[in-house]
Amino acid sequence: MKKNRGMLVVVSGPAGVGKGTICRALLAQSADIEYSVSVTTRNCRPGETEGKEYYFRTKEEFQNMIKNQEFLEWAEFCGNYYGTPKFHVERALDENKTVLLEIDIQGAKQVKELYPDGVFIFIVPPSLKELSERLHGRGTETEDIIQQRLAKAVQELNEIKNYNYIVENDYIEAAVEKIKCIITAEKCSVRRYLFDVKEE
Amino acid sequence: MKKNRGMLVVVSGPAGVGKGTICRALLAQSADIEYSVSVTTRNCRPGETEGKEYYFRTKEEFQNMIKNQEFLEWAEFCGNYYGTPKFHVERALDENKTVLLEIDIQGAKQVKELYPDGVFIFIVPPSLKELSERLHGRGTETEDIIQQRLAKAVQELNEIKNYNYIVENDYIEAAVEKIKCIITAEKCSVRRYLFDVKEE
Repeated sequence: MKKNRGMLVVVSGPAGVGKGTICRALLAQSADIEYSVSVTTRNCRPGETEGKEYYFRTKEEFQNMIKNQEFLEWAEFCGNYYGTPKFHVERALDENKTVLLEIDIQGAKQVKELYPDGVFIFIVPPSLKELSERLHGRGTETEDIIQQRLAKAVQELNEIKNYNYIVENDYIEAAVEKIKCIITAEKCSVRRYLFDVKEE
Repeated sequence: MKKNRGMLVVVSGPAGVGKGTICRALLAQSADIEYSVSVTTRNCRPGETEGKEYYFRTKEEFQNMIKNQEFLEWAEFCGNYYGTPKFHVERALDENKTVLLEIDIQGAKQVKELYPDGVFIFIVPPSLKELSERLHGRGTETEDIIQQRLAKAVQELNEIKNYNYIVENDYIEAAVEKIKCIITAEKCSVRRYLFDVKEE
């Protein structure tokens, strides 16, 4: 019989939709949620810290981790690698914690196969126009990359049906409140409750 | 194609579990939730008002309503009839509102068949001992009826699997917050969101 385990919450959505900001605000307000820090080969942006937003690794280091099957999912995007290390997520779930994963849509697809019971939340922008403005406002990408990301966003909106919830990022605080509610509601869901009761 | 409709929220659970108190608190805090007032043939308790907690009717009047198919569900319990009139619920759903129904478990079963998309919430007591104390504390029933209700509660806990959510009524305010979160989360669920988008 499987042990009672924590809950995996996956926050995903198009690049620039604000999922990073939402997750940071959510974590700042929720001491009981663990964040799964990803590994990336992209450059560290101003204000980012090793081990907080990402573990920054070289391509060689990343490829070694792939070889050693240390990732739940990994992907190449705009010439860089991004991956979710297995160890941290597995340990937090074993400790019956709620683990938050902020990953792109391809990554979410891979995680869904491994954790079908996870809570998959898709963040959508109020409009693509606003998404474009946000990407430009961030000022960390070239115009070419912004265009690539926008094209990808349109395609990714078709993936919504693979998710459990959709949260519009009109206002950060409203989006954070909705995600908190989703987590609370999921903990009350009969499926999880009966599983917990059965395992105790 | 069906019109975009509101959401039916059914709060049910054993008698004495506090679902009435929870629903009153929830309604007091949520201007956007409509309460579906039931019809009953039982006596009006001190503090209750016609049309607020219940519509109080004679058995003859109730039986006429049954004959005219005016109920979504109805049941006889401890010698009295209880029923949910169709009209109010249907109108509120057509107006895209969230409608709250507080009904017993047999009633919830009937409503589930008519509204499989409803959100079914089962309120459970922290323990049966506490349920017994609450029923005695209410002082509105005879000992015989309390014993009947307790026996029924044990049997009803087996019905949980027909519900979407389980909310423990440890503290009224905590239970109310959870139900609010469930409603918020359900509005974000992909199933409802895609339906809404499709219909617009």
